[in-house]
Amino acid sequence: MSDSTTGKLHKTALTPPTHTTPPAKFSHGVRKGNVLQVAGQVGFLPAVAGQAPTPAGPTLREQTLQTLANVRAVLEEGGASWEDVMMVRVYLTDTAHFAEFNSLYNDYFADLKEAPAARTTVYVGLPAGLLVEIDALAVLG
Amino acid sequence: MSDSTTGKLHKTALTPPTHTTPPAKFSHGVRKGNVLQVAGQVGFLPAVAGQAPTPAGPTLREQTLQTLANVRAVLEEGGASWEDVMMVRVYLTDTAHFAEFNSLYNDYFADLKEAPAARTTVYVGLPAGLLVEIDALAVLG
Amino acid sequence: MSDSTTGKLHKTALTPPTHTTPPAKFSHGVRKGNVLQVAGQVGFLPAVAGQAPTPAGPTLREQTLQTLANVRAVLEEGGASWEDVMMVRVYLTDTAHFAEFNSLYNDYFADLKEAPAARTTVYVGLPAGLLVEIDALAVLG
Repeated sequence: MSDSTTGKLHKTALTPPTHTTPPAKFSHGVRKGNVLQVAGQVGFLPAVAGQAPTPAGPTLREQTLQTLANVRAVLEEGGASWEDVMMVRVYLTDTAHFAEFNSLYNDYFADLKEAPAARTTVYVGLPAGLLVEIDALAVLG
Repeated sequence: MSDSTTGKLHKTALTPPTHTTPPAKFSHGVRKGNVLQVAGQVGFLPAVAGQAPTPAGPTLREQTLQTLANVRAVLEEGGASWEDVMMVRVYLTDTAHFAEFNSLYNDYFADLKEAPAARTTVYVGLPAGLLVEIDALAVLG
Repeated sequence: MSDSTTGKLHKTALTPPTHTTPPAKFSHGVRKGNVLQVAGQVGFLPAVAGQAPTPAGPTLREQTLQTLANVRAVLEEGGASWEDVMMVRVYLTDTAHFAEFNSLYNDYFADLKEAPAARTTVYVGLPAGLLVEIDALAVLG
């Protein structure tokens, strides 16, 4: 991350094996020094070459679990884990999904050892068929 | 925040006395090193044991002032203040609320000594009855 | 940024020459230490004294390019550039705008040398006439 000749920090693109090389000028995540930012992830299954991205399924449960797995893949690609995450931003499309989302979220994080991340949940529009998007900011210790 | 034997930074959950222990796997705020992230706060009155969270009132004014008080409580629990805040994210539900919100916001921050935080304001859906949600990122000096 | 007598970091407001002094208690951007946060920018043309803010035009193309120019102006005012940006948050108003937005975004960032920033794009409400808002978090190396 840091150039041994100049001491300057570099920004590293994080592309987990489950993700495609980004089709556009964004990264799935980046790390610079002890800061790691995960881009907005949705419930796409691991990428298959030559195939369009496919959601894990139509349900909130399927998409939430896949989205969390996708965030984790980016964290791990950058040498971090959920334990390092400071902030999780959750974008849902329907306030009626909140209770079920929370239940899935709590189960998923049942074994956290560090303090859970702060979180903001708001209700927005997403591309057709997608019910949830999540991004995360981590600070490594 | 840092473990004297390993030098590793710890993430600390921030739970002000006005807030309930989070009912789910999130924190009202977290601090790690010099970074403090406040989770999305809404206009709930100080928690009363055994009672459901209650908004400060139905109006934008009541909810905005309570929301700002709730953000401040988390900042202070982490040893920070509004002076340390870099970014405030404001989620309103109605573009018609912008002028009044701004007026309340300006009055609230009239006595800031440091540069005011950057801010982004967007219009989203929130759970029924809630008109405003705010989160904040602080960097301590 | 740091007070030579106390060693304390200061937060500096970033007000590019193209921007008005903020009319309210927020900053167009702030820098503290190596963290720079750009506030939500929209497609307003460079400010003209005594004139209300004017969008660059009614189209997504005009507003996107102006918005990106406005984010860049704040970055540069703080001694940073797009190369330092970790996260770009994009707020659009219509999912039908995504393809065109992406195409403009990719062209705009064609010459980036560092890893592109992570990005989250969601669809929200914005004040009438505005089609896009963008904010950015940079970490300087």
